[in-house]
Amino acid sequence: MVSEKLTQRKENFAKWYEEVVKKARLCDYSNIHGIYVIMPYAYKIWENISKNFDHILKEDGVENAYFPLFVTESQLKREASHFNGFTPEVAWLEEKSGEEKIAIRPTSEAIMYEFFSKWIESYRDLPLKINQWCNIVRWEIKMTHPFIRSREFLWQEGHTAHATAKEAENYALEALNRYKKFVEDYLALEVVSGRKPESEKFPGAETTYTLEIVMPDGKALQLGTSHFLSQNFSKAFGIKFKTKEGNSDFVYQTSWGITIRLIGALISIHGDDRGLVLPPKIAPLQVIIIPTKNEKQLLNFAKEVEKKLEKSIRVKVDDDSLHSFGWKLNHYDLLGVPIKIEIGEKEINEKELTVVKRNDSTKIRIKFEEIEKIPKILEQIQAEMFEKAKAYLKEKIVEVKSYKELEKNLKEGRMCKISWCGSKECEEELSKNFSLRVITDEKPFSEKCICGKEAKSVLYITNSAY
Amino acid sequence: MVSEKLTQRKENFAKWYEEVVKKARLCDYSNIHGIYVIMPYAYKIWENISKNFDHILKEDGVENAYFPLFVTESQLKREASHFNGFTPEVAWLEEKSGEEKIAIRPTSEAIMYEFFSKWIESYRDLPLKINQWCNIVRWEIKMTHPFIRSREFLWQEGHTAHATAKEAENYALEALNRYKKFVEDYLALEVVSGRKPESEKFPGAETTYTLEIVMPDGKALQLGTSHFLSQNFSKAFGIKFKTKEGNSDFVYQTSWGITIRLIGALISIHGDDRGLVLPPKIAPLQVIIIPTKNEKQLLNFAKEVEKKLEKSIRVKVDDDSLHSFGWKLNHYDLLGVPIKIEIGEKEINEKELTVVKRNDSTKIRIKFEEIEKIPKILEQIQAEMFEKAKAYLKEKIVEVKSYKELEKNLKEGRMCKISWCGSKECEEELSKNFSLRVITDEKPFSEKCICGKEAKSVLYITNSAY
Repeated sequence: MVSEKLTQRKENFAKWYEEVVKKARLCDYSNIHGIYVIMPYAYKIWENISKNFDHILKEDGVENAYFPLFVTESQLKREASHFNGFTPEVAWLEEKSGEEKIAIRPTSEAIMYEFFSKWIESYRDLPLKINQWCNIVRWEIKMTHPFIRSREFLWQEGHTAHATAKEAENYALEALNRYKKFVEDYLALEVVSGRKPESEKFPGAETTYTLEIVMPDGKALQLGTSHFLSQNFSKAFGIKFKTKEGNSDFVYQTSWGITIRLIGALISIHGDDRGLVLPPKIAPLQVIIIPTKNEKQLLNFAKEVEKKLEKSIRVKVDDDSLHSFGWKLNHYDLLGVPIKIEIGEKEINEKELTVVKRNDSTKIRIKFEEIEKIPKILEQIQAEMFEKAKAYLKEKIVEVKSYKELEKNLKEGRMCKISWCGSKECEEELSKNFSLRVITDEKPFSEKCICGKEAKSVLYITNSAY
Repeated sequence: MVSEKLTQRKENFAKWYEEVVKKARLCDYSNIHGIYVIMPYAYKIWENISKNFDHILKEDGVENAYFPLFVTESQLKREASHFNGFTPEVAWLEEKSGEEKIAIRPTSEAIMYEFFSKWIESYRDLPLKINQWCNIVRWEIKMTHPFIRSREFLWQEGHTAHATAKEAENYALEALNRYKKFVEDYLALEVVSGRKPESEKFPGAETTYTLEIVMPDGKALQLGTSHFLSQNFSKAFGIKFKTKEGNSDFVYQTSWGITIRLIGALISIHGDDRGLVLPPKIAPLQVIIIPTKNEKQLLNFAKEVEKKLEKSIRVKVDDDSLHSFGWKLNHYDLLGVPIKIEIGEKEINEKELTVVKRNDSTKIRIKFEEIEKIPKILEQIQAEMFEKAKAYLKEKIVEVKSYKELEKNLKEGRMCKISWCGSKECEEELSKNFSLRVITDEKPFSEKCICGKEAKSVLYITNSAY
């Protein structure tokens, strides 16, 4: 473990991020550009995210399956705008004589829907709700960053088919709100949710819903999307069903996904100058018990504390004799472990525990017999982190009413809200210089759009995006 | 669901297998040769296998991570025999100008060990125990079969690094025995375990250990392998460590894997003329409750039974009104659900349950208040299935003492044991016509090998292998 201090976040966020990823051993860089290893500690975070979210999906009756990594060119071409949208970043296999050109999945609509057309016969087969956890390949031309943008990444992609447009559209929104609730409850992240402007929609979607955050450096980060696909794909892939009335219709579809990028968001939003700060619900280790010295009496008491906690909490004693107490404190701060319990002679004599909260460095002393308070403190940390993330986003977002104000605030690293007309011309104009992130349900806060036309909605804009 | 009967297993095993896979909706065929979809029911089996095995790995201190799908040609070439062994079935990406030729992982030694050389510094970092659950691509030229051999498959690959040869060799055996125990305990499969003859070793391994079964058609199926890699890879990848004594040495390594092929083994060994027979421990559904008619009174009682069971058991009531009672019985037999509980008027009047065991079709009547017997019956089924698998394998294997006997028995679909000399010439000669599967620790049962030389070990042979 490297011991030098991290670059300060405020000084250079990108450098800080890179250092945290490296020093906390979250990612390692391969010799292929934009390809990373997810190291054990980060993978544990991903396991906690995926396990919890998978449970939520199953509660809703979504079934997991596994579809091929590969898709033929003709299959990928079936929905034209989808193909055109993904073509620049598709990785192709070396052609074999006699075989059709084969691509690696950049997403699985074109792979799954061929099968849906075989599996769906009647309204009785609907809604069909399928999900897969898998790797995805997009041969990015953009700048890559560990967890945030990589040429291969892990994700979950859900795909549903419905009998009516209304039901599908509702489900796409439900899926978005399920993500919102999940990132709030588990990752303690506050997001802006709404729909994408036309120019930012998923290739092949009728509507794309999105969760957005703004990073400390002012760039936007899309955290999850949900698409109402209408009949765009079902018509291309011939996914027909027999209606209750005995007619034939094409199904209405949705697709939605979240990725390991969530880990990038966790690092970026919650982290501080000492390293990671992990929300207790998904922290690989929730409590670390550190004896001040490596002495038997202290270790015994530490083990006793561990034993009391281990049934309900992910807890460990650091009994390593190589490193000093001070080194250990820094190390677990770097790893973002929510609670440190320090055990010294004083603690043993007074049968008390010194509990240090990672999120705000406060120290609490509790009696050994009050140890059942620890889970409560973890809950408190989770809640405090969410409040802090809310306050952060609130501070980062500013309402602007003129183009000049917009430019100035974006340059200063803020996310801007404008009352928006929603016209095509205005969208084209704005997207020349800025990144148009999300249109929300909020009422316009002024009568006119910054272009002068009547305002109809609210649009969030950043200078650029990851 | 198709309702025609299955082909009889004895009549045509390959056809029976294909029909079960299709009718029980386990797999679907893509338009790329040898590429399949793992459908939800089969994926649930895989989830139960992987979840349970992952838990066992974690108990041993193995940590999960995720390594790239891609490897550059030069990386793959570092260990020469490894590269030569895998080259014929490697899938390559279309070359991009200015980038090195890139392959899709056929296994991850060449990908992971580059990182191990960075992560391992001293004996304190050993043993390193890393595992990943991922997809693997081998562009097979051989015949493909769903679950058994496909161009893309899911697996778990474990990789360890140790300070001494002894420790690594022991760990490779431990990993094999862990697989053996797992397939026995969870999949109720009896296997032959031992090491591979020289010509059948993993490319780059010093010793390859294997679990083998013989299929009803007489072909062998390798279920899992564990390799002692010695320093073959650590020297190629420069994985050095500082010893306790302050010297520098290359680590000793192991790698080991099991795949979705385990599902193919489950289908093949436990199945019968009515379809799947699944071991309760990994069955997606352990108990199905089927009312004889779709009447409220029966449904209510069924729900009551479900409620009593659902805390400890994967159970469902089939309250579908579309299909007949008879259709349902056949359907859940096809799916291999371990226990059917039939609920009719008689059962309600007598407050009794009719319990039908899938594995041997026996009917048991138990009082409603004895419902806690159900988990016991599931355990009994698991044990009976294992006993049956043992008896099956015992019957399939025959000891032979002459070449003539060997030929005759292999032709008749048996697996043969010979007392073996272990010589290179004999191995070459035998492997011209047969598939040499595994060398065990058993004592030779005759003094001479079938080639006439002195027997030193026991070798298992089949006519061919999947």
